[in-house]
Amino acid sequence: MIWWGLIWLGNLAGGVVTTAPERGDVMEDLKQAIHQAYTGEAKATLRLKVFAEKAREEGHPQLAKLFEVISLSEEIHARRALRLLREIKETQENLAECFESETKVAGVAYNQFIKLAESSGDKDASQYFSQSRDVEETHANLYKEAMGHLLQDRETTYYVCRVCGYVADGLLPEECPICGAKKEQFVICGDQ
Amino acid sequence: MIWWGLIWLGNLAGGVVTTAPERGDVMEDLKQAIHQAYTGEAKATLRLKVFAEKAREEGHPQLAKLFEVISLSEEIHARRALRLLREIKETQENLAECFESETKVAGVAYNQFIKLAESSGDKDASQYFSQSRDVEETHANLYKEAMGHLLQDRETTYYVCRVCGYVADGLLPEECPICGAKKEQFVICGDQ
Repeated sequence: MIWWGLIWLGNLAGGVVTTAPERGDVMEDLKQAIHQAYTGEAKATLRLKVFAEKAREEGHPQLAKLFEVISLSEEIHARRALRLLREIKETQENLAECFESETKVAGVAYNQFIKLAESSGDKDASQYFSQSRDVEETHANLYKEAMGHLLQDRETTYYVCRVCGYVADGLLPEECPICGAKKEQFVICGDQ
Repeated sequence: MIWWGLIWLGNLAGGVVTTAPERGDVMEDLKQAIHQAYTGEAKATLRLKVFAEKAREEGHPQLAKLFEVISLSEEIHARRALRLLREIKETQENLAECFESETKVAGVAYNQFIKLAESSGDKDASQYFSQSRDVEETHANLYKEAMGHLLQDRETTYYVCRVCGYVADGLLPEECPICGAKKEQFVICGDQ
């Protein structure tokens, strides 16, 4: 896993055992530690997938396989941490949380990121942030539909743009409405 | 994506445009913003997979599919952020980084987490941290072997324990040496 241990050491006060802290403090520190593990493992999962792609590009399929398998292992750690945090609610509540989060992420965080990227003159970053913001808005709509029980009675196939992450519901577009990628760039998803 | 926007807003100083900051500061803020996006999207990828499992358990396969597809979309965002950060090196360097990180995570971070969990009396957390520490140590060995070019000339199949993430190289164990899970709990991985 990647370098998050040192951040954790910087974040927590330390001296957990020697200073005989209050029980409430210990439980709060423990929760923070589990959350730190979840974050570190989730990042490692992702990073190792990208290392695997890189290894494959460089003609090292065995090393790619190693990165992939350790990525899966880190994913198992992250899921286990998330279960320990007991933050997973019932599905309707999870949907509502997702809708609310997407709205904030698109309307607040990504909008700030876009301003920052524009002021820096970094066009790749500007494009990344603005396309991601637009995609997060479409996620919010998908969650909203699902909260309105519109999904219950129909089977649907999704198509996901590999470039910007746009999710098309039921119909493969000729090109991505967010980033303009051709339909060949889409992956079919969710068929079982 | 999940609630990380507000953390970001708390972390960065704000006023990026109005206070005419130095260019170096803007570039540093931009890098931090991209890193924040990577972290948030990686966590969302994971969390949505767990929401999908929960939805399937509750008998909502369509909602499970929706969470899965949006998880993939967030993963695409996270990978794109990681590429923008330009932190992906050549494979040999990535391997060396992974080896070093695993060693630190097992020997420093997880050891601290274990002490904390023990002082809290939370047995589930203790078990999670100690098993994860042990698994990270085996990852370090796998990376070390790979750095010694021992992987180059052989095809291998890996088996991953779904409970604790232990990676068995080439041979399916009767039971997991880390957590004791039976062989039925292992998933075959990396065959192509």
